[in-house]
Amino acid sequence: MTMVNAFDPARVADFAEDEAALIARRQRLLGPAYRLFYAHPVQVARAEGVWLYGRNGEAYLDAYNNVASVGHSHPHVVAALARQAATLNTHTRYITEGILDYAERLLATMPASISNVMFTCTGSEANDLALRVAKAVTGGTGVIVTENAYHGVTDLLAQMSPSLGPSAPISSMVRMVAAPTGLADAGAVLARNVGEAIDDMAAHGIRPAALLVDTIFSSDGVFADPAGFLAPAVEAIRRAGGIFIADEVQPGFGRTGAGMWGFARHGLTPDIVTMGKPMGDGHPMAAMAARPEHLEAFGRNVRYFNTFGGNPVSCAVGMAVLDVIEAEALIANSRDVGAFFKGELEALAAVDGRVGAVRGAGLFIGVDIVDAEGAPDGAAAAEIVNGLRERRVLISATGRRGHSLKIRPPMVFSQQNVELFMDRLRETLASL
Amino acid sequence: MTMVNAFDPARVADFAEDEAALIARRQRLLGPAYRLFYAHPVQVARAEGVWLYGRNGEAYLDAYNNVASVGHSHPHVVAALARQAATLNTHTRYITEGILDYAERLLATMPASISNVMFTCTGSEANDLALRVAKAVTGGTGVIVTENAYHGVTDLLAQMSPSLGPSAPISSMVRMVAAPTGLADAGAVLARNVGEAIDDMAAHGIRPAALLVDTIFSSDGVFADPAGFLAPAVEAIRRAGGIFIADEVQPGFGRTGAGMWGFARHGLTPDIVTMGKPMGDGHPMAAMAARPEHLEAFGRNVRYFNTFGGNPVSCAVGMAVLDVIEAEALIANSRDVGAFFKGELEALAAVDGRVGAVRGAGLFIGVDIVDAEGAPDGAAAAEIVNGLRERRVLISATGRRGHSLKIRPPMVFSQQNVELFMDRLRETLASL
Repeated sequence: MTMVNAFDPARVADFAEDEAALIARRQRLLGPAYRLFYAHPVQVARAEGVWLYGRNGEAYLDAYNNVASVGHSHPHVVAALARQAATLNTHTRYITEGILDYAERLLATMPASISNVMFTCTGSEANDLALRVAKAVTGGTGVIVTENAYHGVTDLLAQMSPSLGPSAPISSMVRMVAAPTGLADAGAVLARNVGEAIDDMAAHGIRPAALLVDTIFSSDGVFADPAGFLAPAVEAIRRAGGIFIADEVQPGFGRTGAGMWGFARHGLTPDIVTMGKPMGDGHPMAAMAARPEHLEAFGRNVRYFNTFGGNPVSCAVGMAVLDVIEAEALIANSRDVGAFFKGELEALAAVDGRVGAVRGAGLFIGVDIVDAEGAPDGAAAAEIVNGLRERRVLISATGRRGHSLKIRPPMVFSQQNVELFMDRLRETLASL
Repeated sequence: MTMVNAFDPARVADFAEDEAALIARRQRLLGPAYRLFYAHPVQVARAEGVWLYGRNGEAYLDAYNNVASVGHSHPHVVAALARQAATLNTHTRYITEGILDYAERLLATMPASISNVMFTCTGSEANDLALRVAKAVTGGTGVIVTENAYHGVTDLLAQMSPSLGPSAPISSMVRMVAAPTGLADAGAVLARNVGEAIDDMAAHGIRPAALLVDTIFSSDGVFADPAGFLAPAVEAIRRAGGIFIADEVQPGFGRTGAGMWGFARHGLTPDIVTMGKPMGDGHPMAAMAARPEHLEAFGRNVRYFNTFGGNPVSCAVGMAVLDVIEAEALIANSRDVGAFFKGELEALAAVDGRVGAVRGAGLFIGVDIVDAEGAPDGAAAAEIVNGLRERRVLISATGRRGHSLKIRPPMVFSQQNVELFMDRLRETLASL
């Protein structure tokens, strides 16, 4: 499987000389494992709020980047970063107070039973640590993920991230289950699939350690409804002695518009929660929160030290992001603007047969693109993604067949931004 | 094995009430896997140059932290960080120029054959990626490390970091060789040990992928001499079809006083170089540099995306660190002040039987502490580390028996700082 929305370097001959030179320079320095987005890659020089600006000041509406979640270059976050970096930036083997204040505030957004947090620098590191803990807690090694899951780039996580394709082979300890159906039966189907995966592990002498899922199923195509559908699958893994790891790297920090965490929509209390991308509005920081009884088995014997994780600068930045989410009421904005956005997309689907199911929660939306027979149409989705890019609106596509538009703007996205988006989308569809 | 220089939480009863409360709060929020340094942990509130400051302004001379390598809170680095964070912070799937300028400047410090660089956020991520590449390049899985190596905290790396102790078991694919001897025969002995490890792998059907070493052997006790001793071991792994990964996370960026990289002292060109800690003077950034032909096999099929790795802010910070290393001639300072430091320590060793071998290069120094029979004395080393801490000088200890003082100050350390350090060390020794 090739990467969804990847630039094809063979096309560089079509570009202006300076652009082609830049792409060639990039390839020469960074090597072949790096990928650019879009048939015609985007060059950016500056960003603010929901806007990315190109070299000549041309403005792109950002409807894709969930990392700059409280808006690009947010002044409150930048000020906190600069202030703390000028004061102190050291590690967690000295006592500093900022990490404790931040840990307390972050944990206050979680169910009471999740009362410990450990800091890393990336979501990959957080998921990798979560799996080390899960193995220590359960004595098991088996992990269940969805069929097009993405959980990170460490050696361990690449082996349970089928969305990376066949060149990153899946571990023999891992079982994959189908993506949620998106239908009323989603809970029963997912639980049955998880149960079969557990049975298959048992048949091969593998003890289950964890069910690991992104609670918005981003790389599977964005599946949010019916709210609560995850609960029976979580019961199944627990009955089998495994634990539930909620990967909140994508949905976390208010994006779903229904509280801070994606698992809340499912009425669940996870055993371990991992988080990352939007946590520092772009600053490299991530974390794993857990029930203390689960950390006990791991932490009693194993020490964990992450040189940069939980440093005073990251904690100050994390605090500033929480400030902005509260001060600008971004969870409510995600809910309200997200609902308006979905309504507009559904209205479009009602009049344009190419637009199929619209899914998602808050400002995390997936839109299926289908052919005349209603079958998934990845090629058309790619044309729409690239057509929007030519009209200076940035999104991408997702799902195993790449046929779902992935719409995931900074949480400061406004109704007016949605209207501009819809105009550009209609223009794009009309041009195909 | 317990961690060298770890705080024992049972001792919290001895402390002032506010200190004890802070430590209890930390344990309640961060859980049992976090460890503090020192019998009496240090609380810090501010830092500048080679100084860390406590809550009440008390100044600690920092002779330990190699992360804040160009000095704590360096204004040139902080300014670059703040400026870029206010302008643009995004990922590598758009084209930005800063990453290319930085990659070019960084690669110019390497042997010409190492002409690709990939960015991560931590040294762990860089080493984890290096091993994924090594496996792809060689088709092997076996890795050789030293007996008290530390290479990172991912699931994969914990299995090849024996310094983490028996609770983090070593992979069956890994072979450990004795730390270097520190003597004239170091090269021959290490090469013989590596050869035996390769033979043992062959006897068990394991194909070698890599020899992975920290080129200053920090956690083994700091071994720098005789310069060049690594070369025969590297030849041995290459003859067996494996590659050589130079872990420069500790010695890199000029600390050894002999060029930018620790491998240079050994007259070597590695196959892969990993780097981290001092790269951003505390900002979370790291990288893996490699020969393009080695990335070819990996990158052709496998894509690698690190959300925060190589973002414009990290690249601006990395550039600023290189600026400071050049503008303040910190490699020469490391060489000169390091030589003076070693001379002072050797003079002390000549008159105090407790001070044994003095090893190292530039501002990376290991000092053995020995008992009356000349045997390693980890307990005495711990007393010295804690005695210095009471006198507001910060170092730690290292090595499998914890008997080597680990001295590794910011590279802006001056001769005057060394003199203060030596006064405090003599006072400490006199007090034992």
